[in-house]
Amino acid sequence: MEKTITDIANELGVSVSTVSKVINNRTGVGPELRKRICDYIEEVNYRPNAIAQSMIKGRTNIVGLVFGDVRNPFYADLLYYIQYELRQHGYMVMAFNSDYEAEKEVEFINQAIQSRYAGLMLITAKGDSMLRAISDIRAAKIPLVLVNRTLKDFNGSFVSVDNFQAGYMAAKHLIELGHRRLAFITGNMESSAGYHRFLGYKQALENYDIEFEESQVYSGDLKFDTGIRIAEQYVQALDLNPTGIVICNDLMAMGFIDYSKKHGVKIPEQLSVISFDNITYADLYGMELTTVDQHLQRMCECAVKTLLQQIENPGNTEILRTMIEPTLVVRGTTARPTRESPLPEE
Amino acid sequence: MEKTITDIANELGVSVSTVSKVINNRTGVGPELRKRICDYIEEVNYRPNAIAQSMIKGRTNIVGLVFGDVRNPFYADLLYYIQYELRQHGYMVMAFNSDYEAEKEVEFINQAIQSRYAGLMLITAKGDSMLRAISDIRAAKIPLVLVNRTLKDFNGSFVSVDNFQAGYMAAKHLIELGHRRLAFITGNMESSAGYHRFLGYKQALENYDIEFEESQVYSGDLKFDTGIRIAEQYVQALDLNPTGIVICNDLMAMGFIDYSKKHGVKIPEQLSVISFDNITYADLYGMELTTVDQHLQRMCECAVKTLLQQIENPGNTEILRTMIEPTLVVRGTTARPTRESPLPEE
Repeated sequence: MEKTITDIANELGVSVSTVSKVINNRTGVGPELRKRICDYIEEVNYRPNAIAQSMIKGRTNIVGLVFGDVRNPFYADLLYYIQYELRQHGYMVMAFNSDYEAEKEVEFINQAIQSRYAGLMLITAKGDSMLRAISDIRAAKIPLVLVNRTLKDFNGSFVSVDNFQAGYMAAKHLIELGHRRLAFITGNMESSAGYHRFLGYKQALENYDIEFEESQVYSGDLKFDTGIRIAEQYVQALDLNPTGIVICNDLMAMGFIDYSKKHGVKIPEQLSVISFDNITYADLYGMELTTVDQHLQRMCECAVKTLLQQIENPGNTEILRTMIEPTLVVRGTTARPTRESPLPEE
Repeated sequence: MEKTITDIANELGVSVSTVSKVINNRTGVGPELRKRICDYIEEVNYRPNAIAQSMIKGRTNIVGLVFGDVRNPFYADLLYYIQYELRQHGYMVMAFNSDYEAEKEVEFINQAIQSRYAGLMLITAKGDSMLRAISDIRAAKIPLVLVNRTLKDFNGSFVSVDNFQAGYMAAKHLIELGHRRLAFITGNMESSAGYHRFLGYKQALENYDIEFEESQVYSGDLKFDTGIRIAEQYVQALDLNPTGIVICNDLMAMGFIDYSKKHGVKIPEQLSVISFDNITYADLYGMELTTVDQHLQRMCECAVKTLLQQIENPGNTEILRTMIEPTLVVRGTTARPTRESPLPEE
């Protein structure tokens, strides 16, 4: 049977509050008694019950991290970096993989609120149910940072790459290589990251006076298999299709390129491909993606700093918003067009 | 200010234990009063404090999952499948990425014990500090399953692929293609998965009367970058090296192949490579790994079943041990040897 704090107090003949003060390293207990209690706790191998401790402190040392797809190396790296940074400051990360489902995210957030987490980081925020969950987080006074997301009507802190610039940069790269007809595979259009990339792409086309074709926008969801599925359609009418394609993340681009190359499409000779993230596998033999780097490690460091500032200054309501500049990384999947793609029919 | 269960009781003029019974769906409260309390709870948007609830029930609905490297797609997939299965049964997964560091794992396990998790799954178990942590888990009566691991002196349940057979199968494939000198890149030799693969490899060499060369065992750690680093050494003396290499997981093999192909090594013409896992990217254009499939999804389903049996039958101390048969998947990285590797000097 595990001992409780009451057992310890009874066995030592002191009050529960005295033992509690020692466990929580508070003042009000003389050095001699403190030592006696510490020694006894060690002797009986007393393990303070975290649940009881949380009730005393009102907070755990746990930071919750919600992301959409652990099978996307971008999010796996993100979890890795954030955990690494938070650990330096004594916090543990509980990771929750939501499969991009708002309902599951709200359930996790409720759990985090009820368990008095020290803080929350959301990398999935979208939609109205999330806005309600965020207002619950606020009401419970749990520090919160959105990572690589912004949210309409959200008046808190976030850290993100400038996704509009990233989208602009990708389209501009293809246009300056000489491509005149472009296609786009979206991420999740309800997420600001995906939507802003799309807006940046459109803006570049407009600025360079290139026609934006609604029919050349493919609806994606950031997954590898979706890249394969869209490539299947795309490759069938390759000669009629645009010569350059912007794909909303590296993982979908890898699926797209995997299918295309296995079916004899020459990349970049027949088709230029550019995407976003610069994950580890972007540089893999056979892939060698041209991509827009989001500086994930820097983004994570900054997100942790932003969260810690809230955790450590509970009264501070300052809102910190950081936009990181993306960088173009040119590798093997983009080049000057070698075929002319026919202009769209009027 | 958030309401407590005491506030609710006072405001309704009933006892705390009555409100508690309703919240926890226990008997002893008449239907009319029950409805009045439920309605009021909804009206004031009362959120039962999970910490307090855990103290009442003595258990949360959280299953903790400890794995070594979220950046390895094998573990990312594992987290995905286990979470998917557990969710069907109303459990949430808290994932903890330990970086293969025993100290961090023990800290997480302590946290899980203190927070009264419903169960634990360990995919990292190794060494003495883990054995002590496991005995703490047992003492706290928290259901436990080891996944893709066994542990010396561990007398509990586990689910694993038969790693000895997997190692045997990999070596046998190369030998039957005609390779006579083989090399091996280890995983973590303290983990049963890595050690048993190595033993299986050695046994195949012995059974086929092929010399085992200690000097052709490279020490690895399952990471992509390590595959690159070992390839750097290997490629320098390619003509003197064995013609076939067994690499302890796909991710290291991807690093190894990435470096080798980028430096002009023809795989499989100059060198055959076989690894373990059959991750999503094993079939990627440019990789097309021959590998030993561990049937990860089936392993995860089985692990969840094994854990749930313990959770749902607290008295049941039956030990379940499942070994899944691995399967060879032949793709593009293995072929008959086209060069003769010189026999090792006496």
